[in-house]
Amino acid sequence: MEQRYQTVRQFTETLCETLATEDYGIQTMDDVSPTKWHLAHTTWFFETFVIKPLAPNWRSPSPLYDLLFNSYYNAVGDQWTREHRGLLSRPTVTEIFDYRRMVDNAVESLLIAGAAPEAIVELGLNHEQQHQELLLTDIKHVLAFNPLRPVFRPDAAPPAQATRHAQWWSVDEGLHEVGFAGDGFAYDNESPRHRVFVEAFEIADRLVTNAEWLEFIADGGYTTPALWLSEGWSQVKQQGWSAPLYWELRDGEWFECTLGGVKPVDRNAAVTHVSLFEADAYATWANVRLPTEFEWEIAASRATAPSEGNFVDSGRLHPGGAATDQFYGDGWEWTRSGYAPYPGYAAGDGALGEYNGKFMANQYVLRGGSCATSQRHIRPTYRNFFPAHARWQFSAVRLCR
Amino acid sequence: MEQRYQTVRQFTETLCETLATEDYGIQTMDDVSPTKWHLAHTTWFFETFVIKPLAPNWRSPSPLYDLLFNSYYNAVGDQWTREHRGLLSRPTVTEIFDYRRMVDNAVESLLIAGAAPEAIVELGLNHEQQHQELLLTDIKHVLAFNPLRPVFRPDAAPPAQATRHAQWWSVDEGLHEVGFAGDGFAYDNESPRHRVFVEAFEIADRLVTNAEWLEFIADGGYTTPALWLSEGWSQVKQQGWSAPLYWELRDGEWFECTLGGVKPVDRNAAVTHVSLFEADAYATWANVRLPTEFEWEIAASRATAPSEGNFVDSGRLHPGGAATDQFYGDGWEWTRSGYAPYPGYAAGDGALGEYNGKFMANQYVLRGGSCATSQRHIRPTYRNFFPAHARWQFSAVRLCR
Amino acid sequence: MEQRYQTVRQFTETLCETLATEDYGIQTMDDVSPTKWHLAHTTWFFETFVIKPLAPNWRSPSPLYDLLFNSYYNAVGDQWTREHRGLLSRPTVTEIFDYRRMVDNAVESLLIAGAAPEAIVELGLNHEQQHQELLLTDIKHVLAFNPLRPVFRPDAAPPAQATRHAQWWSVDEGLHEVGFAGDGFAYDNESPRHRVFVEAFEIADRLVTNAEWLEFIADGGYTTPALWLSEGWSQVKQQGWSAPLYWELRDGEWFECTLGGVKPVDRNAAVTHVSLFEADAYATWANVRLPTEFEWEIAASRATAPSEGNFVDSGRLHPGGAATDQFYGDGWEWTRSGYAPYPGYAAGDGALGEYNGKFMANQYVLRGGSCATSQRHIRPTYRNFFPAHARWQFSAVRLCR
Amino acid sequence: MEQRYQTVRQFTETLCETLATEDYGIQTMDDVSPTKWHLAHTTWFFETFVIKPLAPNWRSPSPLYDLLFNSYYNAVGDQWTREHRGLLSRPTVTEIFDYRRMVDNAVESLLIAGAAPEAIVELGLNHEQQHQELLLTDIKHVLAFNPLRPVFRPDAAPPAQATRHAQWWSVDEGLHEVGFAGDGFAYDNESPRHRVFVEAFEIADRLVTNAEWLEFIADGGYTTPALWLSEGWSQVKQQGWSAPLYWELRDGEWFECTLGGVKPVDRNAAVTHVSLFEADAYATWANVRLPTEFEWEIAASRATAPSEGNFVDSGRLHPGGAATDQFYGDGWEWTRSGYAPYPGYAAGDGALGEYNGKFMANQYVLRGGSCATSQRHIRPTYRNFFPAHARWQFSAVRLCR
Repeated sequence: MEQRYQTVRQFTETLCETLATEDYGIQTMDDVSPTKWHLAHTTWFFETFVIKPLAPNWRSPSPLYDLLFNSYYNAVGDQWTREHRGLLSRPTVTEIFDYRRMVDNAVESLLIAGAAPEAIVELGLNHEQQHQELLLTDIKHVLAFNPLRPVFRPDAAPPAQATRHAQWWSVDEGLHEVGFAGDGFAYDNESPRHRVFVEAFEIADRLVTNAEWLEFIADGGYTTPALWLSEGWSQVKQQGWSAPLYWELRDGEWFECTLGGVKPVDRNAAVTHVSLFEADAYATWANVRLPTEFEWEIAASRATAPSEGNFVDSGRLHPGGAATDQFYGDGWEWTRSGYAPYPGYAAGDGALGEYNGKFMANQYVLRGGSCATSQRHIRPTYRNFFPAHARWQFSAVRLCR
Repeated sequence: MEQRYQTVRQFTETLCETLATEDYGIQTMDDVSPTKWHLAHTTWFFETFVIKPLAPNWRSPSPLYDLLFNSYYNAVGDQWTREHRGLLSRPTVTEIFDYRRMVDNAVESLLIAGAAPEAIVELGLNHEQQHQELLLTDIKHVLAFNPLRPVFRPDAAPPAQATRHAQWWSVDEGLHEVGFAGDGFAYDNESPRHRVFVEAFEIADRLVTNAEWLEFIADGGYTTPALWLSEGWSQVKQQGWSAPLYWELRDGEWFECTLGGVKPVDRNAAVTHVSLFEADAYATWANVRLPTEFEWEIAASRATAPSEGNFVDSGRLHPGGAATDQFYGDGWEWTRSGYAPYPGYAAGDGALGEYNGKFMANQYVLRGGSCATSQRHIRPTYRNFFPAHARWQFSAVRLCR
Repeated sequence: MEQRYQTVRQFTETLCETLATEDYGIQTMDDVSPTKWHLAHTTWFFETFVIKPLAPNWRSPSPLYDLLFNSYYNAVGDQWTREHRGLLSRPTVTEIFDYRRMVDNAVESLLIAGAAPEAIVELGLNHEQQHQELLLTDIKHVLAFNPLRPVFRPDAAPPAQATRHAQWWSVDEGLHEVGFAGDGFAYDNESPRHRVFVEAFEIADRLVTNAEWLEFIADGGYTTPALWLSEGWSQVKQQGWSAPLYWELRDGEWFECTLGGVKPVDRNAAVTHVSLFEADAYATWANVRLPTEFEWEIAASRATAPSEGNFVDSGRLHPGGAATDQFYGDGWEWTRSGYAPYPGYAAGDGALGEYNGKFMANQYVLRGGSCATSQRHIRPTYRNFFPAHARWQFSAVRLCR
Repeated sequence: MEQRYQTVRQFTETLCETLATEDYGIQTMDDVSPTKWHLAHTTWFFETFVIKPLAPNWRSPSPLYDLLFNSYYNAVGDQWTREHRGLLSRPTVTEIFDYRRMVDNAVESLLIAGAAPEAIVELGLNHEQQHQELLLTDIKHVLAFNPLRPVFRPDAAPPAQATRHAQWWSVDEGLHEVGFAGDGFAYDNESPRHRVFVEAFEIADRLVTNAEWLEFIADGGYTTPALWLSEGWSQVKQQGWSAPLYWELRDGEWFECTLGGVKPVDRNAAVTHVSLFEADAYATWANVRLPTEFEWEIAASRATAPSEGNFVDSGRLHPGGAATDQFYGDGWEWTRSGYAPYPGYAAGDGALGEYNGKFMANQYVLRGGSCATSQRHIRPTYRNFFPAHARWQFSAVRLCR
């Protein structure tokens, strides 16, 4: 565990290697957190839930860190207003790295001494891995917002290529078990494992590609209200959506702002950075639909396991790898399932009970995992969730019928 | 059908009998439509979907009525901005009643001649019944907003009384059929009938009462973040919720603004005008949960049928009747189910395909029916839906575990 | 005085003769008040400042009228939120006319008995005349907002015609007296009379016409930022201004929504319904400037007196009359003077001290008077005032250099 | 001139010496610009108006700097949205200092060669001095917003002390000349020099102190609507004003957040960081009024000249010095004069004509100068201007009657 603690914690910092000091502090919209906030918040998590209960004489660098770096745990105390996270120049980046050192030393000592509660450390590491992905999606937004279009990682590898038509996998109707069971780590929202009855369905063996999305655009996808959910169509008009986030038209050709810089849209790559509303409109246009989260999980359980080299911890941000049959590593796949508790679910007591349960309203489940997800953080039962209009995540589309 | 057409159409107007001309035009929030808009829109529905396809020489009182009274059918044309419905003094109330006469005459002639498409007329009548309830919930909001607190119907009957503790009904786990099947009318969103697997559960035999809600308030229900979904807690703080909508504290005692005027809160009546967020917080406080829409439907299918005298078309706005075992007539019951398409559901083609399907996002299903619902409009498979924060409907709470 | 009281009060009601009941209640923007609010507020003014101090047993129709019809007198008590004035169906129009009767009877009795304070009654009547103009500008906005474009007065006379080029009047530099002196009524903001030194200037002998404004538009007036004050240019972009308020382009021709209905823009009439920002941009485009309020007053004092037949109380809404030399009756003329206290000005004590003084910030002075102004309400020292962006008044442009 | 260029430019950088890299990028409200934006914008000014017209082969570090660092010159081109200035991590602080070096070298070469237009360089240096003060007021806001309350300059000197009652100076009525005349530099808005007639008045010989302001607070100044301009009272309620900006109550005692850290409110120092609305309410409470800008200028012309040691370029942020008779160096003094053009004023042609004239609406003139103003930037005719609600400048109050 101690080794794993160091690896995961270190990897968060490795992700920041190419950043300028100024990049760490920017918040370009309410959903985005500054990089340095991610670095501090994940540290505060260990400080609050691992160290403080065990070390009564512990002194934080400032008593205000509780206010500044608590994300949403009401049971711990008040929180600095989320949309003002980018207005704080202090603590500086250096001070936050010092804070990480200080907390890491304490946690590692507790681990060595066998005093640390392993389940909470494990939760903290998974939490850190979630923030690794958020750190990447957020800094992507920060850099893309800047008209100078700074490059995050010039060496980012090209994404997986899908060069043939999608095939349809068939699954028979039946009573299936879904949800997490086993020994490893899983979040509480993946439990209890339970039975669902699912009608027969067919699901695509790969994600929708940019080439296919270009057809949708060319066919008036963004200008035809009949394709859209009502609230989606409102978003199209209000936000002026005419393509996925980060696409821009230059002299008649579509380019995409990536972590590796601005590049022509890669026709054979999976489309990403689309909202649920766009995913649903695309499916309607294609005369099919999106899967439910259970259809997805049943299909994914039968597919190949995550291959190496596809994930952020392989060091390649836009990985090659299998573009078909692959349920992990190309993008978080929108499902048509609202994020709700499983039968028998109950959030835990205390602050950590706020981790998942209280967000189970007005969000949709995404399954799979993206190139910015840690490979060890991936499994068939994992339930990611975002609001239907969110586009800044590596969200993608798999069709079903 | 002709008789039924007249009855339903007439009843909408009967509901308006006590209104002053000025009352017809007010829109107190975006969700509320002015009474006269309801009167005109339901008429426009018949004009557009029944008369115009059959009568090419038909002349509407104004070509602009299509703009003004189209609610959301993009396939028909543009719509007047929803939040500006209350800014139109013309057409006047008299002109709108004239419009009703004109359209009624034409529809009745078509019905007599056997030329009217009965399925669409039937849809139009159910649509009208939905707007009868909306007309009541909207005018309630309009009158309650006014500090003069005008009374809508001084003769409104007292609501059903629940004088004993709730009992729990048990339902075994199993594969159940849900959704509409049969000959009568149902909306497309109730189909297809399909199988769901449901774990064993227990459901309360009556709704939560005002007396119980007062305990929730007294125990800090509205000031304890741990009870709330995250977005619900944000609403509590932003909107300053401290009790159901329409409750007001006067000298330490709670009063409620009803269609019959301001009255002391009736302890034995079902609590109404609460959001899903409040319903969920109450359930959390009570250590239970809300039912899913399928749990509700399975339980309701086994309960007593709607009794007469409980509904708006009985002429009694707050009906007496059985307060227990009763699944209909006391309030629309929030479920924990997001509003989503049933397996195999497809919205129809054309404008009428916009009736239900496009709203299947970010809303929650309510089941049952309220005192403002037409009795003939009630059935176990009926899926009402509103956003989780909505409170101006007669929304109520049934517990499950 | 009693006769005058009746005449003025009656005239307010005469202005409403062509309205439908529904028209009385609409508020199309925050600045607009519903007609029935004007009817009630002017009545409340007499009730509050004339009757109540003298009649301790007076009973208002409702104790809430103080809340509902107090515009801004903090010394009297709280006020209903201004932007919610249009959300009140009650009191009804009939009830408000009854309220007027009741108050009129009481005031008239006091006048006959010689008990009424004449200065306050006189202020109340001037106040009522101000609201007569506001009633007209507000109902114009209400009717023009409605796509059915209802007509207020089909018999409105055509406006004054200016068929020749503007001439420049010269005024020599010198020390001038400005401000009100004399026996008649004037508002406190017109005093004290005092001296100002004014450099030599020239002022146009008529207002800018629609024909001239069309040249401004054709020459890119609304698309050239260099012509505009910075805040004006922001308004142009945010509000999408491309012509005066109420102008609309139909098949390449400009029409104007007037109280007499939609009509082609009258080229020889004075342009109205422009903001100070537009007036200033026009003057910049024409290489001249707007007058200060003192330049205007000095020039107007030498010009012809208001001719009969030009004003609302002549019964002709868009009057004929002299279009040149005329400083009154064609429009309220924007000046470049911020609304500020004259040297030695002090607002009175008590609620009536709130009448004018507290608005002396971020507003600009307009001088003259429009066709909707009462002739008896016009004088060279009158200071009207509105924010620089306001366009719904009959505001016009006179040039200076 | 070359020497002066280096001195002024260097001083801007000296002001930043104590900042962390992270401090340079923050924008805590729309009015505030990040420090690095000030550093870049003042540089862009010289690049655009001095270098580019003379050096056709000049290459900017990026063609986008024109977009990013143009404040409001429409004649030059588009501008990055003002409220998004804080969302740009790049160019970095180092890159902006490099930009300064590059431009400074070019300007200095042109100065040495005698090729630079001296009037524009002089304007640029005065512009830079204005931004030195803005840089300080903005960074004060940034640091005070942070709950860690970082200190800008621990060695800031205490402000001037006023230990006796204010005396009233008398000025007789008369025709006075105001506005700039002479050889030195002045902004175009200070011209033409012209005559104004001013009634006799008395003006205080020192600014209102914090001790006096505490009396105003204690006497209900912030809770008595009768003292306030109407729009000011709206601000009090909306913004929750109860004391000057940066004041905070800790255990019943008032503290003030200064550039030198949080300190007890200094009773004998001039009150600063109040809006015009507060200044006017204070004057009303004290039964006097604020001066007009001409009263101020006439009085100041007879007072002592700015003493050394009172200004930012003396290196002491809160200077000692004469607290009485002193019209400069203690704070920018609100006047009751709207910011308007002097008779005969015309903005210049081209982009530099946008410097002042287009802001002459909805702002009020402040006279004098603060401790953050450069001494060489001070003169009796200087017209500073801000909106009536602005509080983040070093704005102060002098009374008149």
